[in-house]
Amino acid sequence: MSDSIKKVVLAYSGGLDTSVILKWLQVTYNCEVVTFTADLGQGEELEPAREKAKLMGLPDANIYIDDLREEFVRDFVFPMMRANARYEGDYLLGTSIARPLISKRLIEIARETGADAIAHGATGKGNDQVRFELSAYALDPSIKVIAPWREWDLNSRTALIAWAEQHQIPVPKDKRGESPFSTDANLLHTSSEGKVLEDPWEETPDYVYSRTDNPEDAPDVPEYITIDFEKGDGVALNGEAMSPATLLTALNDLGRKHGIGRLDLVENRFVGMKSRGMYETPGGEIYARAHRGIEQITLDRGAAHLKDELMPKYAELIYNGFWFAPEREMLQAAIDHSQARVNGTVRLKLYKGLAQVVGRKSPDSLYSERHVTFEDDAGAYDQKDAAGFIKLNALRLRLLAQQGK
Amino acid sequence: MSDSIKKVVLAYSGGLDTSVILKWLQVTYNCEVVTFTADLGQGEELEPAREKAKLMGLPDANIYIDDLREEFVRDFVFPMMRANARYEGDYLLGTSIARPLISKRLIEIARETGADAIAHGATGKGNDQVRFELSAYALDPSIKVIAPWREWDLNSRTALIAWAEQHQIPVPKDKRGESPFSTDANLLHTSSEGKVLEDPWEETPDYVYSRTDNPEDAPDVPEYITIDFEKGDGVALNGEAMSPATLLTALNDLGRKHGIGRLDLVENRFVGMKSRGMYETPGGEIYARAHRGIEQITLDRGAAHLKDELMPKYAELIYNGFWFAPEREMLQAAIDHSQARVNGTVRLKLYKGLAQVVGRKSPDSLYSERHVTFEDDAGAYDQKDAAGFIKLNALRLRLLAQQGK
Amino acid sequence: MSDSIKKVVLAYSGGLDTSVILKWLQVTYNCEVVTFTADLGQGEELEPAREKAKLMGLPDANIYIDDLREEFVRDFVFPMMRANARYEGDYLLGTSIARPLISKRLIEIARETGADAIAHGATGKGNDQVRFELSAYALDPSIKVIAPWREWDLNSRTALIAWAEQHQIPVPKDKRGESPFSTDANLLHTSSEGKVLEDPWEETPDYVYSRTDNPEDAPDVPEYITIDFEKGDGVALNGEAMSPATLLTALNDLGRKHGIGRLDLVENRFVGMKSRGMYETPGGEIYARAHRGIEQITLDRGAAHLKDELMPKYAELIYNGFWFAPEREMLQAAIDHSQARVNGTVRLKLYKGLAQVVGRKSPDSLYSERHVTFEDDAGAYDQKDAAGFIKLNALRLRLLAQQGK
Amino acid sequence: MSDSIKKVVLAYSGGLDTSVILKWLQVTYNCEVVTFTADLGQGEELEPAREKAKLMGLPDANIYIDDLREEFVRDFVFPMMRANARYEGDYLLGTSIARPLISKRLIEIARETGADAIAHGATGKGNDQVRFELSAYALDPSIKVIAPWREWDLNSRTALIAWAEQHQIPVPKDKRGESPFSTDANLLHTSSEGKVLEDPWEETPDYVYSRTDNPEDAPDVPEYITIDFEKGDGVALNGEAMSPATLLTALNDLGRKHGIGRLDLVENRFVGMKSRGMYETPGGEIYARAHRGIEQITLDRGAAHLKDELMPKYAELIYNGFWFAPEREMLQAAIDHSQARVNGTVRLKLYKGLAQVVGRKSPDSLYSERHVTFEDDAGAYDQKDAAGFIKLNALRLRLLAQQGK
Repeated sequence: MSDSIKKVVLAYSGGLDTSVILKWLQVTYNCEVVTFTADLGQGEELEPAREKAKLMGLPDANIYIDDLREEFVRDFVFPMMRANARYEGDYLLGTSIARPLISKRLIEIARETGADAIAHGATGKGNDQVRFELSAYALDPSIKVIAPWREWDLNSRTALIAWAEQHQIPVPKDKRGESPFSTDANLLHTSSEGKVLEDPWEETPDYVYSRTDNPEDAPDVPEYITIDFEKGDGVALNGEAMSPATLLTALNDLGRKHGIGRLDLVENRFVGMKSRGMYETPGGEIYARAHRGIEQITLDRGAAHLKDELMPKYAELIYNGFWFAPEREMLQAAIDHSQARVNGTVRLKLYKGLAQVVGRKSPDSLYSERHVTFEDDAGAYDQKDAAGFIKLNALRLRLLAQQGK
Repeated sequence: MSDSIKKVVLAYSGGLDTSVILKWLQVTYNCEVVTFTADLGQGEELEPAREKAKLMGLPDANIYIDDLREEFVRDFVFPMMRANARYEGDYLLGTSIARPLISKRLIEIARETGADAIAHGATGKGNDQVRFELSAYALDPSIKVIAPWREWDLNSRTALIAWAEQHQIPVPKDKRGESPFSTDANLLHTSSEGKVLEDPWEETPDYVYSRTDNPEDAPDVPEYITIDFEKGDGVALNGEAMSPATLLTALNDLGRKHGIGRLDLVENRFVGMKSRGMYETPGGEIYARAHRGIEQITLDRGAAHLKDELMPKYAELIYNGFWFAPEREMLQAAIDHSQARVNGTVRLKLYKGLAQVVGRKSPDSLYSERHVTFEDDAGAYDQKDAAGFIKLNALRLRLLAQQGK
Repeated sequence: MSDSIKKVVLAYSGGLDTSVILKWLQVTYNCEVVTFTADLGQGEELEPAREKAKLMGLPDANIYIDDLREEFVRDFVFPMMRANARYEGDYLLGTSIARPLISKRLIEIARETGADAIAHGATGKGNDQVRFELSAYALDPSIKVIAPWREWDLNSRTALIAWAEQHQIPVPKDKRGESPFSTDANLLHTSSEGKVLEDPWEETPDYVYSRTDNPEDAPDVPEYITIDFEKGDGVALNGEAMSPATLLTALNDLGRKHGIGRLDLVENRFVGMKSRGMYETPGGEIYARAHRGIEQITLDRGAAHLKDELMPKYAELIYNGFWFAPEREMLQAAIDHSQARVNGTVRLKLYKGLAQVVGRKSPDSLYSERHVTFEDDAGAYDQKDAAGFIKLNALRLRLLAQQGK
Repeated sequence: MSDSIKKVVLAYSGGLDTSVILKWLQVTYNCEVVTFTADLGQGEELEPAREKAKLMGLPDANIYIDDLREEFVRDFVFPMMRANARYEGDYLLGTSIARPLISKRLIEIARETGADAIAHGATGKGNDQVRFELSAYALDPSIKVIAPWREWDLNSRTALIAWAEQHQIPVPKDKRGESPFSTDANLLHTSSEGKVLEDPWEETPDYVYSRTDNPEDAPDVPEYITIDFEKGDGVALNGEAMSPATLLTALNDLGRKHGIGRLDLVENRFVGMKSRGMYETPGGEIYARAHRGIEQITLDRGAAHLKDELMPKYAELIYNGFWFAPEREMLQAAIDHSQARVNGTVRLKLYKGLAQVVGRKSPDSLYSERHVTFEDDAGAYDQKDAAGFIKLNALRLRLLAQQGK
């Protein structure tokens, strides 16, 4: 492939690995490199990435640094939350949902700069390579993709560092030793995996956590909050209107404080193996529970059950990297249709790792005290109707039983 | 219908309501009554029910009191847990799963005693009438069912008590006033609903809880436990082999102590309205998380994802009362097929309402450190395979994009 | 209920049964009646219905006769066809899809005329009562519904005719004897059921068919046609642009001539029993096959497979009467999203009951001869990619097999 | 990979392509070759394959020729038919279902002969490579797979023939020219694709068909047959008991005679492209319709609808090659559970391409004339029950409408 690349846009963090990749692309493909560094709320300074890229010889015009936090939450996290998506029952898809946005921006920059390729730093064993590349191909079918980890032979830390030194790439002291695990972070979550986490019988060591306080150290007094929703999306915290990213940031602070959103999971990767991950999704966990809470009183049963049936497939699609696929968009159309009246306020109690819905109200509530009451309902509901309802629901079972089931 | 009933088997708790029903059946249908009182682990003495039935004139032969706890957990709770069933995302179906067993026993007793009808004390607004009756009809298509709450006009507490007094039924002092909410209990859970819980915006008062300590009052030190599984069912706690009911009882004690398994839910009833319930499922919540934990390392991805896709429908069937329906049995056959190698041990941390899986191991583990490692994998996995994998997964998306999607 | 009805809108065919109902409503409820007669393409004169209604004393303002053919095909049949909906594998839902439109118009007329109730002539054993009433309640939750067949005691033909004569309702000669079966017709289909069709082992007698010629009598020479589609809807026949109803009418003529669309089915009713029906859907069968044909080259695999998975539920919803339910609308949103590029032309061969797609072309075709060719593909597809694709798809199966599956 | 193969089992037809592969394996891998030729009912003499293999130097012990017809129909076709499986709405999966059996036998022979690899003649563009290899890996995770079409550079007919001649492989005269299309055949179907079929707008030429007479040339008089089923499997034709393969063979004769089972399809391959195929499944089409027919009267609605919902996924799994995957087995367990009482007789009419169910009867019929009748049903069904049934089904829709949907 090396013969044909003229210009490549690299998803660049400014860290050692992607710095090595930057240089390796220059050396191997003899091509122009454009770097793209996104602020997705990972909590790192981005300007150092600019300096490093300059050091590698890139002109200003080839260095893109974008704050994508609002777009990330508004157009990716919130739509996914409308679906109550959890992969394999638990995982809130924090890494999965960020990848399509990065690819979207890589392709946009490729178009702006006339690049014919993109490159990323994901390995050949994981899901991220798939997510980056499926999104890229879906947005630009003729784009070329370079995945150095699948191509080069720098398959040990030592080899990587040696290559870096050989090519005058500064190696920070703390990168010389082995990192005890690998992480990915954005506004929705931090994931950790690998090395000390590779034995699924061993409890995750405390030093792995970076986004949440230990529930045992969290406040001894619960905290109550409210979240307001409009059309299925969060719009206010404790009555204060907030933009999507601002709201999620505030919920992250609350979740961190109360030790909410830690998840120890062994999951099934799209590439076929099981892996063990530790996820911290403090604000996302609170938000996800709140969203279910508001749906409880505003969503019709038929809509709610259909959503629940569709959710596993929807979550799988996002996990596997099919965000920009027609079937994900079809499911989104169905889900979004259901959210038109998902308006109202949810009250939650936060306490030592727990985020529990304790109240919900809505101008669009479908909950009818008049119908459900144990007291006299003034004719709202005729209990005799239930007899016919049961009789006809039972009819097929009775016909079956008569045949000596 | 009153003309034709000769003998009726009544699901009898010994409480005021079913005592009134017992007498009402005698008076209204002029028929022989057989009472059936089940020990499902609700934590109440059953012998008083015998005495009360005798007081109403029933001979010993017409009084059935059965300990169904092992059958309940072994044949109903555990099969349901194999499916990771949660209704509407959260509810562990504690009431729903007990009803078919009660109906099964009602029908058996009807056959033993030559009864032509059964009766239950569920109201015409709820799900339980449906569950009782669908199960009964599925097991005996010619059985008659009497649901007094749908037939009589004792539609207020006052009317009920007046009728009781008029018919010499002892009314306990504490039943004269209004109970502030209604409960159902068995070995899996206690549910509370109605009255003080009817406003879904109001937080559940502390006095409603009966099965779990308040997390705020739970021990400040976490407790670690292990559960062993064989073929998808729990068989031991902390290494000690236990029968199904013994295991669930022990987990209930642990759950109570650590404040685990409280759920405040607004759910959709099968009869068409929303209702708000407070569920306490202490042992069940621990068990459910443990079961997911052991599946994480022993269940193939294809099997796991299929299970996740089928689960909402399976849970809905149980909730709606279709336990003895062919489609529930079909789903069970699929689910049970998947559990053949769900063997191993899960380690959990219990702390102030949280039950978290922190470790899992199995002789049948499908987790392969050799494949997943960030280190040299000695050829277990060829990263170059991923390129082809992605290319072919992307092909349809590229063809689509070429058409100017 | 009789005390409270002031004005009722009756779905009125002008036939004997609904004429009896008209009079019965006047007599029983002592209320004003408005008749609504729809032209859905059933192929009957509607003006006689006006005359009969006048004879029963209705003023002109109380007689509604509407041609709904275009609305029926455009807003009901075509959206359903986009989903490739077939109930229980075969049935094209010809009766089911017409009921919501009739209810919609009944409710509109009730609003226009200030009526507080609607009435229909469907029996208490069938699906149509459910479809009429669910749609009506979904559109007007406070509407009252009168279903005379569930209320009165005219449960034999003789009783009905006696009542008619007693109330001076003219009874056509041919209605005096028993009709050998019951029918429903509209532009999409004619269904026949009951009586001579009640034994599912007996072949349907030839005289039952009214919409299609016997394939054995159809032309011995095949006929080729083309249908053009835009966004999933048919827009032209043999190159000639047509409105929805015009197109379906023309296809019906073709289907009749070639004996296409006969279906002998035993189906499961929503009310719990099985029934045997004979359906003739001449144009609909051709159209349904053509729609699948155009999707074959224009629909992405992910979209197509999702549609196939959703279809049985979608068809069940329509069959059961849940057209105006949120979950049907959600599914429709997903389906419609998929049809944006379902454009092009399908060529079909019609011959003695067969309607076969023999060709399809589209400006939006996703079919790529370049990729699929057995010849040299000039690098469009790298066969070596398949090795990695298979390897990673197989990985989980190999890990499973290593565990001694 | 070439360094490590000692002995390879080749799926060998005796034709030119697999003969070239046989020699190429000897030359390239310098390894011992075992040939396996299966009689799956493709209608070709197998003994010539033995002679050809001998000519290539194989000893008798290395030549396997097996008649797998009964196993094929009994253990693969019939289980699939129990599911009413059709891929993308139409395709009866004739090729897909044969591949796992061939792989199973290849692996068995590899074990018997101590071979460490298998080889097949499927190209790198198709589904068959995937099906062969996924099955092989699922049955033997350490097996090596050689797919010459993905490895060699004989990418044109000319190159292949040149190589054959160079290696003294006899090239039949009729193989020198281009075959106008490619076929696969077994007892269930014959598929044709490629070349003259590659333009999906062009009608399939008549000379492509080999298994069915043209409907236009079929008898002018319909033929009636009966098929008996036991537990969902066909057991007799016209009252005569037959083994699975015998029954399918007899149905193939009938289907050929009446021109039944031709299908012109553009389908989505697992590897990502669309392809156009012409399928002839004469007996399978008759059988599939008969199976649906017997299910109509013997299968409960809940079971039937669940089957319909699961079918698309089940068919996709078979199409994609996941026969030996846990999720296919889970679905099979569910499906098989439903077939316990699918017993009885179906009557079909065969005429010029049509196979129509015209009657069905069963000792286990769930069809109840007593319930469905338009006549007096002697109290079997209380029409008033329908009112309550509808009211409660409508309740959620009314609550929704009250909120001003």
